[in-house]
Amino acid sequence: MILLYTDFGYAGPYVGEMKAVLAGMAPGVPVVDLMHDAPVRDPRAAAYLLAALAPRMPAGAVVLAVVDPGVGGPRDPVMVEADGRWYVGPGNGLFEIVMRRARSMRWWTIDWRPERLSASFHGRDLFAPVAALLARGERPAASPRAADLGRYPEWPDDLAEVIYVDGFGNCMTGLRAAGLAASGRLLLHGRGIARAGTFADVPAGEALWYENSAGLVEIAVNQGRADELLGLLPRNRIEVA
Amino acid sequence: MILLYTDFGYAGPYVGEMKAVLAGMAPGVPVVDLMHDAPVRDPRAAAYLLAALAPRMPAGAVVLAVVDPGVGGPRDPVMVEADGRWYVGPGNGLFEIVMRRARSMRWWTIDWRPERLSASFHGRDLFAPVAALLARGERPAASPRAADLGRYPEWPDDLAEVIYVDGFGNCMTGLRAAGLAASGRLLLHGRGIARAGTFADVPAGEALWYENSAGLVEIAVNQGRADELLGLLPRNRIEVA
Amino acid sequence: MILLYTDFGYAGPYVGEMKAVLAGMAPGVPVVDLMHDAPVRDPRAAAYLLAALAPRMPAGAVVLAVVDPGVGGPRDPVMVEADGRWYVGPGNGLFEIVMRRARSMRWWTIDWRPERLSASFHGRDLFAPVAALLARGERPAASPRAADLGRYPEWPDDLAEVIYVDGFGNCMTGLRAAGLAASGRLLLHGRGIARAGTFADVPAGEALWYENSAGLVEIAVNQGRADELLGLLPRNRIEVA
Repeated sequence: MILLYTDFGYAGPYVGEMKAVLAGMAPGVPVVDLMHDAPVRDPRAAAYLLAALAPRMPAGAVVLAVVDPGVGGPRDPVMVEADGRWYVGPGNGLFEIVMRRARSMRWWTIDWRPERLSASFHGRDLFAPVAALLARGERPAASPRAADLGRYPEWPDDLAEVIYVDGFGNCMTGLRAAGLAASGRLLLHGRGIARAGTFADVPAGEALWYENSAGLVEIAVNQGRADELLGLLPRNRIEVA
Repeated sequence: MILLYTDFGYAGPYVGEMKAVLAGMAPGVPVVDLMHDAPVRDPRAAAYLLAALAPRMPAGAVVLAVVDPGVGGPRDPVMVEADGRWYVGPGNGLFEIVMRRARSMRWWTIDWRPERLSASFHGRDLFAPVAALLARGERPAASPRAADLGRYPEWPDDLAEVIYVDGFGNCMTGLRAAGLAASGRLLLHGRGIARAGTFADVPAGEALWYENSAGLVEIAVNQGRADELLGLLPRNRIEVA
Repeated sequence: MILLYTDFGYAGPYVGEMKAVLAGMAPGVPVVDLMHDAPVRDPRAAAYLLAALAPRMPAGAVVLAVVDPGVGGPRDPVMVEADGRWYVGPGNGLFEIVMRRARSMRWWTIDWRPERLSASFHGRDLFAPVAALLARGERPAASPRAADLGRYPEWPDDLAEVIYVDGFGNCMTGLRAAGLAASGRLLLHGRGIARAGTFADVPAGEALWYENSAGLVEIAVNQGRADELLGLLPRNRIEVA
């Protein structure tokens, strides 16, 4: 199985062109759109969200991940094997949190290059072919990478920020709920928010936080849009009280 | 074939996480996104639209349907076999119209439970695995349900409401066109609307209704947005004159 | 492989209903959404974009293309074999540029008809079944068409217009970059725009044009939306200085 995790959106031919490459090079391998609105141009936020989603993905899955504002710049293309899953994409920190939490992990700089590499679309020309090769059990040319080179040790283990706002205005953070006390409160712009099991535990219009289905702290308003009512945007800091 | 019918939208990882479960548990079974903007949080409207779309779906198809504002509440998970197709989802009336129009029908409360069931995402944790089991010919643990228990006899056979507004502003209703006379008129906010074969049968800017490709009465404006020009919203009542 | 190229958008059941037909009639054939926001109701612009994308598609692919404002009107359904790929859709010029640039090409009027043909959804009822037949190696009933009948000789080889605005405001044109000098300038509303290799070659807020990943001239603004900052809309004319 190949899972796509990008910030391309569904507009335009970009996702389709990647999938045409995958269907051509890895026929018979299922391709699943995990998410195409990953945190836009923000590999750090995208890294925390990917690390929350990845543990549920099947063993052997190849994750083709592209959140790559520096495409065409100096960052290396990389591939990572972590806990039995493969990750292919830009070496800009996107896999930092997956790697840090893995029980076993190896990574490589990708040396393989296509005949034609466009300046702006490495997802189609480089990462998709490498993902297809991995999915059919082949190993593209690659150089083992030192475990600590190109890493981001300054990034925290949990990110106390809004990393994603969904279509209903619910605000995911980079904090794992398992690390917070049941009585834990968040502070947003000086306002305290209590934990609840589910939306219906608080009156309509009231804010709450809860453990979402990815295990992350998510801020919501019962029957309302948390982003608008609480003035929350991606990258806003959250305090744990 | 597994068909997805949800109100999740394409934003976020929700559809992708469901599809990763399906690809992992039912490899080789095609998964088709029938619709992810089913009437939002409105199982009743969604029931009429699903019943209009279902008769064209292939025999043996498994429809995984999630319009479930009460997730985590008391409603049962159910599975239905109707006219040779399977339906899996919440027992909140979403399958009421499919069941009522079926020539043959049986239904069950789903007893099967996953190891981990999140509070907010039964689509991924419960309904997707059950759909995968059905698609590969297995039967999850389930209790036969009395034919009349949990039914919605007060719902009409056809729903004289706007149930869906498409991206072009055309307004689908829950009325089957076959039940209306060719000369039938609709009344919207006191204004009469005549039937036409197609958009081009009326002058630009003029309203019409026609039998859409799902067999439903659909209200449109030639070269315009019916929702804006006629002031129509989901759940607005329609009168048949 | 079947590739979908439509202007339907992802809202509503339309794409899903087409894919249910394909999965039922051509099981095992991968179906890829190349693009569902092709130039809306504009077969001419859609023809130039399709011709730019097509050369990268695998040999043997069947392109199911529907940009069909005249559905239900007099235009013929057609199928084209060009350079080893199949194209199925309305005979309204959508394949004109693919055909013109092909080294080898044949085309047919489709005579095959389904049992039930809706007035408004030939994509589902006619074009999808024909694409499925072609994908499994069968030939639907069809009449060879004279090479010059139903062609659009008045259309230019390259279209000096904005043909598509992507989600980030970048504006694709129907001009192939290979045909322009490296020093070539564009004129938009009297303003000159110079070529650059990539966004970062110009200061933030500055306009540029570059060869996009489909080989087309694309107008962009570094860290900004070209459509808003330059006042560009689909169908706007571009001058090559």
